[in-house]
This record gives sequence, C-alpha cells and structure tokens, in this order.
Amino acid sequence: MTTTPDLAPPAAAPAAWNASLHAEVQQFYAHQMQLLDLGESERWAQTFTEDATFAVPTLPEPVRGRPGLVAATSRSHAELAAAGQRHRHFIGMFDVRPLDDGAVDVRSYAIVYVSHIGGDSAVHRVCVCEDRLVRGDDGTLRVLARTVTRDDLA
Amino acid sequence: MTTTPDLAPPAAAPAAWNASLHAEVQQFYAHQMQLLDLGESERWAQTFTEDATFAVPTLPEPVRGRPGLVAATSRSHAELAAAGQRHRHFIGMFDVRPLDDGAVDVRSYAIVYVSHIGGDSAVHRVCVCEDRLVRGDDGTLRVLARTVTRDDLA
Amino acid sequence: MTTTPDLAPPAAAPAAWNASLHAEVQQFYAHQMQLLDLGESERWAQTFTEDATFAVPTLPEPVRGRPGLVAATSRSHAELAAAGQRHRHFIGMFDVRPLDDGAVDVRSYAIVYVSHIGGDSAVHRVCVCEDRLVRGDDGTLRVLARTVTRDDLA
Repeated sequence: MTTTPDLAPPAAAPAAWNASLHAEVQQFYAHQMQLLDLGESERWAQTFTEDATFAVPTLPEPVRGRPGLVAATSRSHAELAAAGQRHRHFIGMFDVRPLDDGAVDVRSYAIVYVSHIGGDSAVHRVCVCEDRLVRGDDGTLRVLARTVTRDDLA
Repeated sequence: MTTTPDLAPPAAAPAAWNASLHAEVQQFYAHQMQLLDLGESERWAQTFTEDATFAVPTLPEPVRGRPGLVAATSRSHAELAAAGQRHRHFIGMFDVRPLDDGAVDVRSYAIVYVSHIGGDSAVHRVCVCEDRLVRGDDGTLRVLARTVTRDDLA
Repeated sequence: MTTTPDLAPPAAAPAAWNASLHAEVQQFYAHQMQLLDLGESERWAQTFTEDATFAVPTLPEPVRGRPGLVAATSRSHAELAAAGQRHRHFIGMFDVRPLDDGAVDVRSYAIVYVSHIGGDSAVHRVCVCEDRLVRGDDGTLRVLARTVTRDDLA
C-alpha cells in the first residue's frame, strides 16, 4: 500500500519549527523547481530519494523512483518545446512542519504559468503540493513523497 | 476612532530587522492563508487578535473581532463551493518592519487565483496587504489590524 | 567589457549558503520591488550600485547607472498611470548562491501582473531575473548587475 502524508499518520511526532529550516526549505524548492523548468531532468530527479513517490491527479498511480521521474519530466519538456511554449513553476506559501525523526512535512502552493513564445503568458494550473522531505547521506533535503492536487479538478 | 497602519503614526519606533523574524512572518502567513482557503474559518480567525480590524475596499467599514471574521469568510467559502469554484490566496513579497514595542508592520502582495472546477484557472485579484502584527500570550504572531487594497479599484 | 553572471565566469568561488542570507535576500527583493511599483524611482535606484547594469530583452544594450534606471522606470510608471493600469512585480523562487568575495548570485522568477482600474487583473509577463548582488559601504545589499529574460520571447 502506498503511504502518503495524506493517507497515513505521520511517522514521527511534531518537532519545533525553526527559522533556519524554513529558509532551507525555500532554497530547496526554488532550486528544485528551477531545475525542472530548465529541463534538467536528471539533476531534478536527484532532489528526490531513490524510491520517492510522486502522485498527481492525472496518473492512475504514483510515479515511483528516479527513472520514472526523469522519463515523465523529459517528455513534458520536449512536448512544450515542440509546442513553442514555456512553463514556470512558481512555488511558495510553505507551511513547514518538522517531525522529531528529522523528516519535514511541507504543504505549499504551486502556480504553473504558461508562455506562448511570440504570444501571451497566463496562469496554467493552480496546485497544492504536499511533500514529506527527508535528509540524504550528505545532509541535504530530498523529497520522499509528493502529492500534487489541482484546483480545477473535482 | 479606528487606528490603522495607514492612518496613524506607528505606535512605536522602528527596531532592527532580523532574519529569524522574517522567516517566522513567512510561516505565519503561509499557514494563515492556507487555513482561509481550506475553509477553516474558526482556526483562521484565531490568527487574529480578539479585537482585530480587517478593512477591505468592498465594505463601508472594517470588520472588527473574530465573530465577524468567521461570518465573512464562512459565507465566501460557501458561495464559492456553490459556484463550483476554488480560490487560493498566494501571499508573498513581505516587507517586514519590526517596531520597538514588539509589534511588526508587514506590507505584502496577495494574488487571489480562481479555478473553475472542470474548467480554467486565472488571476482573480491583485491585492496589497498592510498588517500590524502583535504577539499573543503564547508568543505567536497575530494580526491586530489588516488593510487590503485591490489594484483594480481606483 | 561588461561582465555579467550570464556571460562570464564568477568573479569568486562559491561560498557556503546560509539561512540568514536567504532571508535577507528575500527582504531586499520585497522592498525593492515594492518601491518600483509605488513609483518611487529614486529610492528604487538606490538599491542598485552607482554603476549597475540592467539588461532587458527589449533594449539593445543594458541601462547603466542610476540616472538611466530612474528615467526608465519613471517613464513606465507615468505611461501606466495614463493608461489607467497598475503593475505589480511579484518576485520569488530565490536560488541564492553566495560567492567567497561577499557577492551573491541570485536567480529568481518575477511575475508581472497588470490590473485595469475598473476592470480585470491578469498575468502580464513571466520573467527570470539573474542578479549579482554586492554590499554597499553601509553593509546592505545592492544590485551590481541584473539580467531579465521574458518567457514569451524567443
């Protein structure tokens, strides 16, 4: 059974929020989303754990693991380029909840903008992103489980 | 007479800005706005002081106190649900100005997005939010006075 | 020869990221962009170094120095007012990279919203902003070089 922040109790009790963690979380997401928009799929996938899950409403089950993440985002990036469009994922509104085992639950908003090259820019999607972050061997944050919902879907 | 950050001189002199406060302010707003969008009107109202004022251009005078805040937001949330829409309040751009009595003046931008369930998402409103924050007995931040302006209104 | 983060190797080696700097960068940009939107062109220009460069895709060469920055933004602000419009520059997604000489490279996203007074609000531009920041004599951050790109342009 897939365990996500939405469906299961936290693996650990809440821990104290601190300002340094909040800034670190912001840096993590800024860098991660910029890699995505740059089409740097391999480097982007490295910001997830090896066995990470990524659940989106348009797929029947979560993507699991880095190869699947790379494949999905490489395909999306190529389709956008072919269509003469660019996407930007603007993420913010981080509600950061550290757990006492070192994991961090983060609920945020992500707005996806689309620009038509030679044309207009507009809001494409309004999403809520619920992540569980954990630390890798090098101490940096990585996504263990991500669940994205879209406001335009029931 | 109503005293708001716009209409009256500050109650205290400026104090030194610090990074921890800036992160705390961001966490405060992220959590507060997420409660609003979740329809958690009672919990949202707890992020204001008991006698808080909330001035918006579409009301002839400010809402004052938590019961009025709960009523206004509960009504809005019900109307949106009935119309098959969702709103997200994306707030950021925090210009944080601590005062030497412990209060904090914050001027920020809030973009309201609307999504039509089964349809499109778009920008609904572009707002500037001017708050005076104070600390409750438990040390956490609360809104004492909020003034919201909308860019589409003269 | 103009040296910008895009065209030349960094002037210094990377230094350690820290949470306080990230918060300071956010405060800097929030305040800077609010000055721009308020039409405070002189105060806005003071957030750049005296010899700062500002490169945008719609100009054949970068603006250089504060008088040119003041002239460009004053003109834009007057044109918007005459057209009954307001712009808001919402900047975020700060990927902050300190260098060991004290400079800071920041890559961020800036969304420009337009509101027609008495009408609608919408996305106007989606931009990427690449800055090199340095510290003035008073220790505060200033922009030494800014390069803005627009997603709607090839």
